[in-house]
Amino acid sequence: MDAVIDAARTSWVPVGEASDFPLQNLPYGVFSSPGSPPRIGVAIGDHVLDLSIVADAGLLDGTIPDPLVVVTADSLLPLLAELLDADDSRIRDSGLAETPTDDTVTGAALVPRGEVTLHLPVRPGDYVDFYSSIQHATNLGRMFRPDSEPLLPNWRHLPVAYHGRASTVVPSGTDIVRPCGQRRGDPDGEEPTAFGPSRRLDIELEVGFVTGGPGNGLGTPVPVADAQEHIYGYLLVNDWSARDIQAWEYQPLGPFLGKSFATSVSCWLVPSEALEPYRVGGPAQEPEPQPYLRADGDHGLDLDLEVWLEAAGGEERRISATNFRDMYWTPPQQLAHVTVNGTAIRPGDLYASGTVSGEGPGTYGSLIELTWGGKEPLSLPDGSTRTFLQDGDTVVLRGWCGGAGRPRVGFGALRGQVAPAPTML
Amino acid sequence: MDAVIDAARTSWVPVGEASDFPLQNLPYGVFSSPGSPPRIGVAIGDHVLDLSIVADAGLLDGTIPDPLVVVTADSLLPLLAELLDADDSRIRDSGLAETPTDDTVTGAALVPRGEVTLHLPVRPGDYVDFYSSIQHATNLGRMFRPDSEPLLPNWRHLPVAYHGRASTVVPSGTDIVRPCGQRRGDPDGEEPTAFGPSRRLDIELEVGFVTGGPGNGLGTPVPVADAQEHIYGYLLVNDWSARDIQAWEYQPLGPFLGKSFATSVSCWLVPSEALEPYRVGGPAQEPEPQPYLRADGDHGLDLDLEVWLEAAGGEERRISATNFRDMYWTPPQQLAHVTVNGTAIRPGDLYASGTVSGEGPGTYGSLIELTWGGKEPLSLPDGSTRTFLQDGDTVVLRGWCGGAGRPRVGFGALRGQVAPAPTML
Repeated sequence: MDAVIDAARTSWVPVGEASDFPLQNLPYGVFSSPGSPPRIGVAIGDHVLDLSIVADAGLLDGTIPDPLVVVTADSLLPLLAELLDADDSRIRDSGLAETPTDDTVTGAALVPRGEVTLHLPVRPGDYVDFYSSIQHATNLGRMFRPDSEPLLPNWRHLPVAYHGRASTVVPSGTDIVRPCGQRRGDPDGEEPTAFGPSRRLDIELEVGFVTGGPGNGLGTPVPVADAQEHIYGYLLVNDWSARDIQAWEYQPLGPFLGKSFATSVSCWLVPSEALEPYRVGGPAQEPEPQPYLRADGDHGLDLDLEVWLEAAGGEERRISATNFRDMYWTPPQQLAHVTVNGTAIRPGDLYASGTVSGEGPGTYGSLIELTWGGKEPLSLPDGSTRTFLQDGDTVVLRGWCGGAGRPRVGFGALRGQVAPAPTML
Repeated sequence: MDAVIDAARTSWVPVGEASDFPLQNLPYGVFSSPGSPPRIGVAIGDHVLDLSIVADAGLLDGTIPDPLVVVTADSLLPLLAELLDADDSRIRDSGLAETPTDDTVTGAALVPRGEVTLHLPVRPGDYVDFYSSIQHATNLGRMFRPDSEPLLPNWRHLPVAYHGRASTVVPSGTDIVRPCGQRRGDPDGEEPTAFGPSRRLDIELEVGFVTGGPGNGLGTPVPVADAQEHIYGYLLVNDWSARDIQAWEYQPLGPFLGKSFATSVSCWLVPSEALEPYRVGGPAQEPEPQPYLRADGDHGLDLDLEVWLEAAGGEERRISATNFRDMYWTPPQQLAHVTVNGTAIRPGDLYASGTVSGEGPGTYGSLIELTWGGKEPLSLPDGSTRTFLQDGDTVVLRGWCGGAGRPRVGFGALRGQVAPAPTML
């Protein structure tokens, strides 16, 4: 697809070559700064453009910069790209911002990103988590059911999913308190169950989309060909998982407390339009799915992904590098599936892809796969090893399209540190 | 426990003996009438007391009658019972209402219930569905796994549950459009899957609670002994289920599209306080659960429940009568379990019990149990039979505490009619 913002255009706001946020991205977020309440902004280079100030100056055509308005209204991307274009002076040198040198920018409308606190870009109504990487589903099947076909019979016919907890979706930077819960009793013990802090705290590297537009209305399926119109944008998701709690509780109704304690999302919502140049053909699907799931054209996404792990006080190490383009089920198929029974979608809903795992050990999106069930520990730069997460560990997810001569449309880092379980239990 | 509103007190509003809504109940709802927007009311006899008018008259101590305020603020029940008490004249004969005879009431503050449209009492943030009837779980285990122990190993150790869809929680009276979806292919056919309107549309008779109070805050478990303080009130739930869609999709992540198309709730939220006189001891639990799930005192509820089924144009027939007192896991245990991993609860969340089934065929809360997997059809008054629901069928759930000389604290009818699947698919 053609780029909405031509790759050659640049901004009067300085943007470094390695920045996730050039003029071609302009993702939304909700930020606050000392003494000011949360408000909407757009990331550009190392700054945040404060949309409340831009709106007050009459430059947003009357749009009220509120998260649900942003995801449901007509796109602001072309207008914002005009305002930030190197050739435009409506904000630059207007009193809202000044550019005393080519490398610096100051003024009320542009806040340095390092000085702001980021919040959730939207508060999801419903949160759905898929299971759409064939490599991830195969790896887990091999570990948990070594004597059977790794993929269950339904897996190639529909994008398996479950509803997750919406109240515990938290922004990047939120500490993840190690959850307590019930697990199977130790094999050599007498008790059928045990209780305490999770011993197998894991991550899941995922990509999520957020719905926008007018919604579909109860009882009205979204055809797969129209699904993209209902997707406002994308973000990174870390679906923290307590494997021991999950393994004991999940039959027959699926994961619950092993997942519900926290789900982290990156704070900059990258608009679908900014990702258009990086769309790729969907994966080959065999057997061909039911007609309501058959997608044409470029419904995959060439999106590089990384997982980094850092012990408390140590250096970070990259433990996985993979790509989103090989996901078996794609976002348009996922949304067509969710709504085929008439389910209502609402603006701001969050739909996560499931763990993104490629082929081969260095491309897996969870520790249970990277350490093969805890049997093959990872080494960290400080000499320590990890199977599952220890208190104080920080996990950072990164993702971006482009680079290498093309505009880098990135997601910013999604960061979370493990805090000890509460002592009251 | 002692009644908050003494059983001997009566109201100046006429209340019939069979009414669900005496002075001892006073459940909240959101209603609208022709030409007026939705607003909060309280059911009393055959009328709704319009709290916006009562508040405007300065009689609610400054409380703003908004659904989330009602469930989080200090209880209004004692004050409302005073205002409606036979001996109180602040509303009666005040201009807001008149009582020309002992049997009639008129005036702006009291709207006949037959003239109003009811809406959701609260829009749930998260919706959790449990599986807490031992008889129901045993029945389904016997049908689906005839050669194994009917209860899975975890069932007696924790209240199994999953997150359901919040966007499709609908009020009583909403038509239920038969969902389309994917199911296993016919056994004698060549296709592994089939697609179309569900052929096994079922109900689940459940009781739900709605959280109120201040919330717990992320990372802070609610002790089982404190759980009741976080429960604002109760309502009836019909967890419509497409058994064929569910059976094909549910491994390994649980029910999804087989449930997400619609969940109906009754429109009057019965305050916990009104149910105090009907609390009973919890069920015997063997083995004893983990300490965080051990509840003392009267954490069960003696609540009669009925399911009625009516073919289009026919008469209704009662197909099940049961009671909520025998549920294995109770609401305080359920809430302690949900939060033990630090999950945040929010005011207005909905937690449904799971299907309520007693011992014996006439006490089951779903058609799959009542017809034993479709093998033993039910007869209706018009001579037709049913295994699962047909288009045009209406299902009515009823529930009440008391009666037989004690105040009847009822929930009102929860009604839903099955509409045909959309023809577009």
